[in-house]
Amino acid sequence: MNATLPNPDAQPLMLRVLAGETTERPPIWFMRQAGRYLPEYLELRAKAPDFIAFCLNPEMAAEATLQPMRRYAFDAAIVFADILLLPGALGQKVWFQAGEGPKLGPLPELATMEAEIEASTARLANVGETLGRVRAVLEPERALIGFAGAPWTVATYMIEGGSSDRSRARTYAYEHPEALDRLLDILVEASARYLAMQAANGAQVLQIFESWAEGLPEDLFQRLVIGPHVKLLARVRELGVTIPVIGFPRGAGALAEGYAAQVPMNAVALDTQASAEMGRRIQSITAIQGALDPLLLRAGGKALDARVETLLHQWGGGRYIFNLGHGIILDTPPEHVGRVVARVTGKQGWGG
Amino acid sequence: MNATLPNPDAQPLMLRVLAGETTERPPIWFMRQAGRYLPEYLELRAKAPDFIAFCLNPEMAAEATLQPMRRYAFDAAIVFADILLLPGALGQKVWFQAGEGPKLGPLPELATMEAEIEASTARLANVGETLGRVRAVLEPERALIGFAGAPWTVATYMIEGGSSDRSRARTYAYEHPEALDRLLDILVEASARYLAMQAANGAQVLQIFESWAEGLPEDLFQRLVIGPHVKLLARVRELGVTIPVIGFPRGAGALAEGYAAQVPMNAVALDTQASAEMGRRIQSITAIQGALDPLLLRAGGKALDARVETLLHQWGGGRYIFNLGHGIILDTPPEHVGRVVARVTGKQGWGG
Repeated sequence: MNATLPNPDAQPLMLRVLAGETTERPPIWFMRQAGRYLPEYLELRAKAPDFIAFCLNPEMAAEATLQPMRRYAFDAAIVFADILLLPGALGQKVWFQAGEGPKLGPLPELATMEAEIEASTARLANVGETLGRVRAVLEPERALIGFAGAPWTVATYMIEGGSSDRSRARTYAYEHPEALDRLLDILVEASARYLAMQAANGAQVLQIFESWAEGLPEDLFQRLVIGPHVKLLARVRELGVTIPVIGFPRGAGALAEGYAAQVPMNAVALDTQASAEMGRRIQSITAIQGALDPLLLRAGGKALDARVETLLHQWGGGRYIFNLGHGIILDTPPEHVGRVVARVTGKQGWGG
Repeated sequence: MNATLPNPDAQPLMLRVLAGETTERPPIWFMRQAGRYLPEYLELRAKAPDFIAFCLNPEMAAEATLQPMRRYAFDAAIVFADILLLPGALGQKVWFQAGEGPKLGPLPELATMEAEIEASTARLANVGETLGRVRAVLEPERALIGFAGAPWTVATYMIEGGSSDRSRARTYAYEHPEALDRLLDILVEASARYLAMQAANGAQVLQIFESWAEGLPEDLFQRLVIGPHVKLLARVRELGVTIPVIGFPRGAGALAEGYAAQVPMNAVALDTQASAEMGRRIQSITAIQGALDPLLLRAGGKALDARVETLLHQWGGGRYIFNLGHGIILDTPPEHVGRVVARVTGKQGWGG
């Protein structure tokens, strides 16, 4: 993407942190760094009205993945995809309605989904192709991230039929514990294979998004989040995957510490609420990632500049990947993103 | 309410815990213990179509307050009212639409509201009358709780015009820090006077509901939650109020510990996510209250019974008030409430 020759010995800064190094500066990438806040994304997206078809089109998804890498000096790209591709691949109907968020059809029989696990990975082969295309052109100093939704988060969408306050899924966890555990096991196995396929196709880091850890009582958090993450990570390793894995238990509150202690992730991503102290305690166990408020990134101004300095100061002395505490909001001015990336990296743009 | 003569020396169990005692069993009450899950409430409520008029009718509000006290052996009653009575009393239009939650008109000028603080307390005098009516008939062994919304939570409704994800209010906090601080100061002063009026009319305990502490970054939590709670509590004390005060920073996550350390509340109420360990650490500073999952109370069954035992076991050895982590959900079976109250109190009903 730039005029210099690639250096095959360059080790991406992101991978150095995930290998346990405290680096000269934190690497930076943003959740949802590719997407609707970028005018070039909107232009590209307009060419494929169906969102799932867009995600599964390797040419378009690779282009979406690369767009923010041209604008900004991000240290990592994340493959453009969606956590709800997996339920689709397992046989549940999934569709996106403009302005309404995802919708899912009835939950298929568990036995039917169990029989579809192997096929589900094959149905997501295009995500692997997207990764290959991106890796072929991305500079070697920049890492490529693959991802999947965490079992509980994906299960909440599958049970509730879309976005909601997760109360139906939590009630299901109380009233049908065996059925839920079986669904989580299906998702552990299908996600492990999906992640292994991504690693085989060029992903150098994997992230597991537990978007809906919030509000869970401690016993449910143990059962629905920590347990399945431990299983999923072990299964990914059993499948021969050796690249680093980041866990993101969003909304875990004080329970994030128990998560970090029990799940042997290479990094734990923190949400906006994480305290400086808790982050430092987790840094003594593993690397951390986060936790700038996306609302502040959108607001910009002096408050944003000051908060960036605070985050660099409070965590930059240890293993730290600069990121948001949640995804970029769609009406975020692109120049706010550029300002933060330039501050953290010292570069105005890649190669600039 | 029962046939036995009142014992003037009886000290409510709730007040003993709040005075620092570890009691033989935890007292119990539930947030939203009066309300729509009770058929007798629905019958009463049908007589006054307007919700605000219902809250400000001392006869009806006293009856609503007392309904759960007849059914269950709760150790405390909480005055039937709403945290949005205060913005209404300060001159902002507030109305409730069935099935839609609260709606608020445009935010009045700050100077106008500043001039209305004294008058706002007078406009809420009927809440005082409700408290007096309840205290006159409630058994002396049972405590009476008054309450107010916390400044930030009330401000989010005032800024956003109703319920939402609070992103507008948080953006306002970033973009208009002086205006927000001034609004919070108005709410601190108006709430302090409102709470003092409740104490003067029979409330024996006060609770401050910070329903929307969740997701705030540490710096904003300090500025929008901890700061105003410290000010509000100090102002309540300056106004001569000596009764215990409970703070409820719902959704504070790991930041609840800093809250407990910095705000000298007589108890800190914990939400559903609070860990056993964090609760015990806070118990070394003050009493705690909470944190049964209202979704589990609704679901019932063995999972509910088991969780009640866990909570009693993990916190019952210290200063502990049994409660939910959030309010009762409207379609909760009343018999589930009865089952938990009976287990905690050892009584089938009051006087039973």
